[in-house]
Amino acid sequence: MDSSIPARPIGVFDSGIGGLTVTAELRRLLPHETIFYIGDTARVPYGGKSPATIERYSLEISDMLLTAGAKMIVVACNTASALAVPKLEETLPVPVTGVILPGARAAVATTRNGRVGVIGTRGTIRSGAYERAIHALAPEVRVVSQACPMLVPAIEEGWLEDGITDGIIARYLENLAGSGIDTLVLGCTHYPLVKAALARFLGPGIRLVDSAENCAIAVRELLDVHGIGAPDSGKGRLRVALTDASDGFLPVAEKALGLEVGEIHLAAVQR
Amino acid sequence: MDSSIPARPIGVFDSGIGGLTVTAELRRLLPHETIFYIGDTARVPYGGKSPATIERYSLEISDMLLTAGAKMIVVACNTASALAVPKLEETLPVPVTGVILPGARAAVATTRNGRVGVIGTRGTIRSGAYERAIHALAPEVRVVSQACPMLVPAIEEGWLEDGITDGIIARYLENLAGSGIDTLVLGCTHYPLVKAALARFLGPGIRLVDSAENCAIAVRELLDVHGIGAPDSGKGRLRVALTDASDGFLPVAEKALGLEVGEIHLAAVQR
Repeated sequence: MDSSIPARPIGVFDSGIGGLTVTAELRRLLPHETIFYIGDTARVPYGGKSPATIERYSLEISDMLLTAGAKMIVVACNTASALAVPKLEETLPVPVTGVILPGARAAVATTRNGRVGVIGTRGTIRSGAYERAIHALAPEVRVVSQACPMLVPAIEEGWLEDGITDGIIARYLENLAGSGIDTLVLGCTHYPLVKAALARFLGPGIRLVDSAENCAIAVRELLDVHGIGAPDSGKGRLRVALTDASDGFLPVAEKALGLEVGEIHLAAVQR
Repeated sequence: MDSSIPARPIGVFDSGIGGLTVTAELRRLLPHETIFYIGDTARVPYGGKSPATIERYSLEISDMLLTAGAKMIVVACNTASALAVPKLEETLPVPVTGVILPGARAAVATTRNGRVGVIGTRGTIRSGAYERAIHALAPEVRVVSQACPMLVPAIEEGWLEDGITDGIIARYLENLAGSGIDTLVLGCTHYPLVKAALARFLGPGIRLVDSAENCAIAVRELLDVHGIGAPDSGKGRLRVALTDASDGFLPVAEKALGLEVGEIHLAAVQR
């Protein structure tokens, strides 16, 4: 293969910066792949918005990624994964994966007692998407869900190891921790950034399923199935575009994830 | 005046539900006025967005209010007040008021030692709008500002009297409280809902300027100046429209403010 022909990127998007946790896992697992990440910061958060709106946003951002040559679309946003992946799969000419199904698969593989907890934004929890995905794989598994709306803003403040964040975690997870679950799905792409604090509160009896990590594994499988992986010899790059100027969270995520983001491009979008 | 002719409403808008604190003050101060409130919940929060975007949103929502016959536009959103009021004043055929100038006026009237603190969202604080407005009125006043991004989500969770919210307030206001200010401007329409917690932390030596309350006073003055107040005999109504289905904050605000919101209309907006 002529190395002067640029490799087609894996297109990744999120409503904001949170999907960089998925991107960091992709960089770790597939260092020879080039990634084009779009954070739809002009319209963040998708969380409280209607399903029709989220579907439309997801199609628009996917089109931008396809225009840039994306060979696959990774929906690194739980809200959009919950509400838009079926439409994207139906419409787009490339493979699509979200974060929900990989997380659900890992949860079913992890639980020993058949009791799984799921935490996420209000939108993700209200959608019931993890519950449905887990039940489609293993109808006998019991799922307990909890929305944690304060966690994303705490993470975006950079309060990753912090007494206030610990208090918020304790408030939200108190009932879940006592409900007999042995597995907890981190159903929001921000949450891996407070994995240590979550593990500390829950103790060793509850295993955490990181949907960013499992999404990256699913991407590797999809690349193999479709035979569209980049040659191992290449060195992948990361390109990041945002639909509006970023707030303070980008440096927090870059630092916590050890990502080299480099120059950020701005991409116009109808808002 | 023929009572069968419906009175022209005061048009009020916010990026979300927070502006209902202004609406509650308007209902209290001007019970004979009819109010049409639009919460742009489809595009909330304006906080992190670019000035051009916020200007465009504000013009769109103002047009919806004017189409409904609004005789005045009240920008019950600090971010939009900071960034869009000049454009609205230049463009719209009715009087316009935001929350910044009334808050700045009250702060200057309140301070005895000439040191004023301002708290708000990242967007409001970054804009420097309160500082500019205060300095335009009283160049000698020293202004200390602090962004408090975690307060809005805590309020929207309904954690109004809550140890975690107290912790967040202490974190953000610690430096401000020790900076010698005698006046603090609540530069976000959500904040009056945690006024009691703020006052408790700050103690009696620092007076709070509630921009919702002062905005309502400014509206009364504007109605008088332009001679467009509703007759005292009438009984005003409140109509609320949202641009997307509401999340859980509306009942929190209704209850805390004692507002009778009644049926919520949905208004389509380009997102």
